[in-house]
Amino acid sequence: MLYHDKRLQYPVKVTTPDPAFARMLQQAIGGVEGEIRVAMQYFFQAWGARGRNPKYRDMLLHTATEEMGHIEMLATAVALNLEKAPASLQEAGAADNIVGAVMGGENPRHVIEGMLQRHILSTGMSAYPANADGVPFDMSHIYASGNLAADMYCNVAAEATGRVLATRIYNAAHDDGMKDMLHFMIARDTMHQQQWLAVIEELGGHAGALPIPNSFPQEKENQEHNYDFFATAADGSPPPAGRWTEGPSLDGKGEFTVFQNQPLGDVPDLGPARPDSSAQKEQM
Amino acid sequence: MLYHDKRLQYPVKVTTPDPAFARMLQQAIGGVEGEIRVAMQYFFQAWGARGRNPKYRDMLLHTATEEMGHIEMLATAVALNLEKAPASLQEAGAADNIVGAVMGGENPRHVIEGMLQRHILSTGMSAYPANADGVPFDMSHIYASGNLAADMYCNVAAEATGRVLATRIYNAAHDDGMKDMLHFMIARDTMHQQQWLAVIEELGGHAGALPIPNSFPQEKENQEHNYDFFATAADGSPPPAGRWTEGPSLDGKGEFTVFQNQPLGDVPDLGPARPDSSAQKEQM
Amino acid sequence: MLYHDKRLQYPVKVTTPDPAFARMLQQAIGGVEGEIRVAMQYFFQAWGARGRNPKYRDMLLHTATEEMGHIEMLATAVALNLEKAPASLQEAGAADNIVGAVMGGENPRHVIEGMLQRHILSTGMSAYPANADGVPFDMSHIYASGNLAADMYCNVAAEATGRVLATRIYNAAHDDGMKDMLHFMIARDTMHQQQWLAVIEELGGHAGALPIPNSFPQEKENQEHNYDFFATAADGSPPPAGRWTEGPSLDGKGEFTVFQNQPLGDVPDLGPARPDSSAQKEQM
Amino acid sequence: MLYHDKRLQYPVKVTTPDPAFARMLQQAIGGVEGEIRVAMQYFFQAWGARGRNPKYRDMLLHTATEEMGHIEMLATAVALNLEKAPASLQEAGAADNIVGAVMGGENPRHVIEGMLQRHILSTGMSAYPANADGVPFDMSHIYASGNLAADMYCNVAAEATGRVLATRIYNAAHDDGMKDMLHFMIARDTMHQQQWLAVIEELGGHAGALPIPNSFPQEKENQEHNYDFFATAADGSPPPAGRWTEGPSLDGKGEFTVFQNQPLGDVPDLGPARPDSSAQKEQM
Amino acid sequence: MLYHDKRLQYPVKVTTPDPAFARMLQQAIGGVEGEIRVAMQYFFQAWGARGRNPKYRDMLLHTATEEMGHIEMLATAVALNLEKAPASLQEAGAADNIVGAVMGGENPRHVIEGMLQRHILSTGMSAYPANADGVPFDMSHIYASGNLAADMYCNVAAEATGRVLATRIYNAAHDDGMKDMLHFMIARDTMHQQQWLAVIEELGGHAGALPIPNSFPQEKENQEHNYDFFATAADGSPPPAGRWTEGPSLDGKGEFTVFQNQPLGDVPDLGPARPDSSAQKEQM
Amino acid sequence: MLYHDKRLQYPVKVTTPDPAFARMLQQAIGGVEGEIRVAMQYFFQAWGARGRNPKYRDMLLHTATEEMGHIEMLATAVALNLEKAPASLQEAGAADNIVGAVMGGENPRHVIEGMLQRHILSTGMSAYPANADGVPFDMSHIYASGNLAADMYCNVAAEATGRVLATRIYNAAHDDGMKDMLHFMIARDTMHQQQWLAVIEELGGHAGALPIPNSFPQEKENQEHNYDFFATAADGSPPPAGRWTEGPSLDGKGEFTVFQNQPLGDVPDLGPARPDSSAQKEQM
Repeated sequence: MLYHDKRLQYPVKVTTPDPAFARMLQQAIGGVEGEIRVAMQYFFQAWGARGRNPKYRDMLLHTATEEMGHIEMLATAVALNLEKAPASLQEAGAADNIVGAVMGGENPRHVIEGMLQRHILSTGMSAYPANADGVPFDMSHIYASGNLAADMYCNVAAEATGRVLATRIYNAAHDDGMKDMLHFMIARDTMHQQQWLAVIEELGGHAGALPIPNSFPQEKENQEHNYDFFATAADGSPPPAGRWTEGPSLDGKGEFTVFQNQPLGDVPDLGPARPDSSAQKEQM
Repeated sequence: MLYHDKRLQYPVKVTTPDPAFARMLQQAIGGVEGEIRVAMQYFFQAWGARGRNPKYRDMLLHTATEEMGHIEMLATAVALNLEKAPASLQEAGAADNIVGAVMGGENPRHVIEGMLQRHILSTGMSAYPANADGVPFDMSHIYASGNLAADMYCNVAAEATGRVLATRIYNAAHDDGMKDMLHFMIARDTMHQQQWLAVIEELGGHAGALPIPNSFPQEKENQEHNYDFFATAADGSPPPAGRWTEGPSLDGKGEFTVFQNQPLGDVPDLGPARPDSSAQKEQM
Repeated sequence: MLYHDKRLQYPVKVTTPDPAFARMLQQAIGGVEGEIRVAMQYFFQAWGARGRNPKYRDMLLHTATEEMGHIEMLATAVALNLEKAPASLQEAGAADNIVGAVMGGENPRHVIEGMLQRHILSTGMSAYPANADGVPFDMSHIYASGNLAADMYCNVAAEATGRVLATRIYNAAHDDGMKDMLHFMIARDTMHQQQWLAVIEELGGHAGALPIPNSFPQEKENQEHNYDFFATAADGSPPPAGRWTEGPSLDGKGEFTVFQNQPLGDVPDLGPARPDSSAQKEQM
Repeated sequence: MLYHDKRLQYPVKVTTPDPAFARMLQQAIGGVEGEIRVAMQYFFQAWGARGRNPKYRDMLLHTATEEMGHIEMLATAVALNLEKAPASLQEAGAADNIVGAVMGGENPRHVIEGMLQRHILSTGMSAYPANADGVPFDMSHIYASGNLAADMYCNVAAEATGRVLATRIYNAAHDDGMKDMLHFMIARDTMHQQQWLAVIEELGGHAGALPIPNSFPQEKENQEHNYDFFATAADGSPPPAGRWTEGPSLDGKGEFTVFQNQPLGDVPDLGPARPDSSAQKEQM
Repeated sequence: MLYHDKRLQYPVKVTTPDPAFARMLQQAIGGVEGEIRVAMQYFFQAWGARGRNPKYRDMLLHTATEEMGHIEMLATAVALNLEKAPASLQEAGAADNIVGAVMGGENPRHVIEGMLQRHILSTGMSAYPANADGVPFDMSHIYASGNLAADMYCNVAAEATGRVLATRIYNAAHDDGMKDMLHFMIARDTMHQQQWLAVIEELGGHAGALPIPNSFPQEKENQEHNYDFFATAADGSPPPAGRWTEGPSLDGKGEFTVFQNQPLGDVPDLGPARPDSSAQKEQM
Repeated sequence: MLYHDKRLQYPVKVTTPDPAFARMLQQAIGGVEGEIRVAMQYFFQAWGARGRNPKYRDMLLHTATEEMGHIEMLATAVALNLEKAPASLQEAGAADNIVGAVMGGENPRHVIEGMLQRHILSTGMSAYPANADGVPFDMSHIYASGNLAADMYCNVAAEATGRVLATRIYNAAHDDGMKDMLHFMIARDTMHQQQWLAVIEELGGHAGALPIPNSFPQEKENQEHNYDFFATAADGSPPPAGRWTEGPSLDGKGEFTVFQNQPLGDVPDLGPARPDSSAQKEQM
């Protein structure tokens, strides 16, 4: 269970509100690379954690809880960036000077359109759980497979795309308060990338954890093609050479080779449609 | 651009059709861990690939093309598993012997209900691009960030959850043809896990690739907390010790420590609602 | 604007309630082949209809209004099929005799599971706007392109898949009341298929209406490949002959031929990633 | 920001695991009436709260935080209900005795199908953020309008449907541990219904809070029809009498009357399609 | 069943077309606070209405039918606001004077981008069933629980957020025709808020209707915490005092008190993963 | 299975990159009228094709494979149109001259906002599988009914709306390379409209293929109303005359007539709610 503190994890200050920047921040809230995703992903991984060693569950709870505070920071930042924006055309005209100054000469009408989405229409100028396009976050992006190593790579993927996003927003930021907030969040993403990879290391690294799941007897998988790079060029030209085309595999359990892809199966024949399947007569 | 061969990449045989098994296979087609996802993800990563070295683009095209053949195999397997199933209640009664034998004594009505979804109603007993619950695949799961290392971890995540899924389906399989098909696909997942990690290795491994993106000057991120594990227990009790709580970080650029999380910011104050924002008067 | 009559367009009677059948009916309510789709599609086409001749707008309003009555009939049928179903495990035990008779010996627990979705949990045993898998209808399936001929083909497609669905449900029906309701709805689908094709006929049939849109000057499209069947077999083997591989085109404006697909373009080169795009350094 | 305690808010015990019951619990996790919805809705309302009186923000944080603990309890209950379930067909056969005992004579194959969704395939027998049909929760259901009174009614709606759902699940429960957990959660829903209505009372009740938003000058709305019940029967028959057809309005600002609906507007004329809009020529 | 009149319920006039305003109107069509939602919600509540008194069903049909006319008005308004807009860049240049005048000096290119969504690409300048962000309406927002009181609060919530939205659009309107249309629709929202609350009053108000569902024996819920406000501040500081922290509850069945939240349960222990669940070996 | 060629099917050149045009192209990639849809639709129809004549399956594979190359062309075009765009506000200021020239005097800030969606934030300036509004493509739009004739009309609908979209984008194009690419794609849409209608012709045209499915015995459908146009005007005024109101039906199996719609059924009576259904007591 959780407790709250009404103070923020880290200061969130906005000197010059910018509704277009608020829109970017929405991607970090409700985008698939955003903070709702990691918070909920870590919670569901924790709540379903199985295994003799409870420490992974505990660790996940620590970090999931932290991420909730990040959503809060971003939601606060969105609301502050919308603070002084005009709410209607009429007002935009009147406010031209102020907004113009803020936006570096931008036409205020333009600003309105930038916020015209649910920020103005549906939230009264607050954050909402959708991405920068207004597409609501959908929970199918919560990856929690029941396999600890698979989940850790899902988490690395989330933090890698998350830090890419955060640095892009940082590069677009022009307000010192926003830069400060983001430089903190980017640091946290650095740590979280490390953290999930460190679990893989504890689980034996490439040699111990791969192939995932390591509990499936590898002799049950096809032994001819499990370390082959399949080349699919129509003219049979070889693929570019890389770490993955020759040499020992990373898990030390095979040798990389190249295999020219070709049909090992037949043309499928599904047979005619059944009489009562409402196909056309010609299909029966 | 692509070419096709109407033969299958690998044989797909079904001796005893099983509609419930067909439903499981749908997860491998249209689930977030499935083959539509990886095929499309690798294509979009290839089509947007930037960088002086075109080999990553080429490699992605090879594997994306291969994955299209996997969707085809699974779609064929679904259709074959639905082949002999009764299409209506009336017929189910008549077919009791056959189906009963197949299903191990199961009531045929039950079988129908198992297929009642769009397989019977909307496809006439073919595969469709949705998961085992009938939830259509949605393309927001195509991760292609423009950052090569982030994308590789997304791909490892996809192949790790993909192989977990494939082995679970294998464990539930009882038809030799289906086991044979799956033992091939599981082998390919093994290789693909290796392949994407091999790219990370080429890019310098943990030390060279992390933190992702490595092009963002790390001195711009907060230096106090970028290798801290944040502990969030309400009673201040320490988190479990692990590879991530002490010792050098995996990228060799920091030292793991533990930090007891606490509010560094203030209580946010968004100020009153604007007069024309259609809030209640009491909020203004 | 609309008016209502609280009586149904056609009688809806259920003698032996069957929750599994209720689930099938949901596909006809909230499936992509269902009645919400056609009602809303025809309304939006009508509301956006442009052109000197208002009769198409009027016709669409007539039929959209009719379709609303079909949703109502199906929703009523769902509620009646859930009428006598047990609401809990305890009751299912008690009701074994009754339900058992209805279901042909089926275990009542099974029946419950069949209805366990939102019918029992979220609606208190009524219909809801989702398909047989419980996937809510989403309005992106309302096709209204602003091009009358394109819309007519969208409508034919909707009524064709709609009648396929209705006949499949009819084939699975065992209650005379349900068969009667469906035999009426299937007849209406027959008419609606005719109706939209009749508009195409009024617009000049294949010769007059195609290619859609007929307002785009056809000389602006590539004249070399606009009546070619592109063959994509990797080994260059010819495609199967058909009405579409030789002879005059249906619109009388071209001649069908076969063209072996091949790359007419180059390998694309997107250039390196930009310095501030948060790609990996190796991509820049 | 938040802190966690790894203990649960209230005991969660399962004596006889029941995967079908686990599926019902999913509706309370990821259904639109479920706990993810209320937790996130209260957080987003708090994070965007504006107004001179900060107490509503604070109150929302208290309750949002509580609701996170409810998701945790339900996720735990799902995992425990799946604990002893067979993971494969083979095992189901072997485990017939055990499972049969648990399920009251149910065929084990049936049990498997009941869990066949992502519980078995995608989560390894844990909860996931989707409803009982496997439809992932989507965040467009987080209602936070920026208007305090509107939000309170959204919250009452959420808790009213939430308690309806919880009592339905209670009625289907047969395990004492589950009943105990639910009898606690139902009590909390009782309080939360009260709580949001108490805010309305503080805001002046019907007379003070309505119409929402009360900040829009009511003289700007049409004064002829703002307290009329519009009757839409095609034959002009009067609507049923009720509190809403005569007498003073609840806000004391009008008098209820009945108005027979009729077109006050004209047939709309959108004019022809534009020449370059890719409509058919006949529409231009 | 329904009938139609091709005239509009209320006049819809647009003197100066404004595509950006058209975009706002989309939120009132296909947003979660919009008219498709209420029309369909009231229809599904009517179609599933159970109870000895048919008047609630009848009343719902009257109002659902009215709401269909509101969608029509808004769709007409969208089409009229797009009427004179340039369809292409070329034309925008030519039309600069006209559009410039309309838009108050706005660059015409900007206007195009404002409409660039499906209005221009997919509808040929008509309305479509999506919100202002182009997110299609999804029918999971149709709340119809089978509990009359819960549904009434869902309806109040819909009309409260609906009127908030309509007044925000009114505040942004600058065309007299649009203001006239909206001042009518806002009035209707006022009535509809009243109407659904009047049903609650008929059902006994707070004392009679609460807690919802009132058919669940309240003694089965936990009696210790059903009127407690749970405080969740980490430092144990008391929550702000309000109508909900002390005094009699609104239903007169309890007394509000404050309870400092604390774990009443244990740390959950899910046990190890099963051998065949494709978890990592370390979890078994 | 598939093979690839890394060259493009047709040249894709962009002389003057235009991010707003890139956004339009997204509709052709991930819109419901776009290329992902047709590629996947044809593949799934092929993979599920049943019938004695395998040629329809083969034909579908040829064309599905071709369409994959169209997605690739469009994705390349998006990436090239984003090539020179500024990635941040700072840079936009500096780059004013270049961008200004490109955009015809457009304010660079505006350009950024046009791309602000996932193109800049989530893809690093590449295409992604969503429409022009950023709404991800969802696979429920893959129509594959198991009925060949129904599928063909679905394909005509897809190619008709597809060509409408492509011509609209052509009309908005100002770059010669883009016009050249589109004039090729529009030609392919022309052929594909022909191709699917040619299948209908092979299947017997209107007389042979209708009503779809033609395998359902037409005598089982209601014979009174299967060729009636139902008029639904409230005042009983006749519908506009058209090809569909009199004369022989297109399939030659009936005669069109007009029927004034009226209730043939009764007021439905669902009976009271069940005692344990958690309705309000008043409903029981």
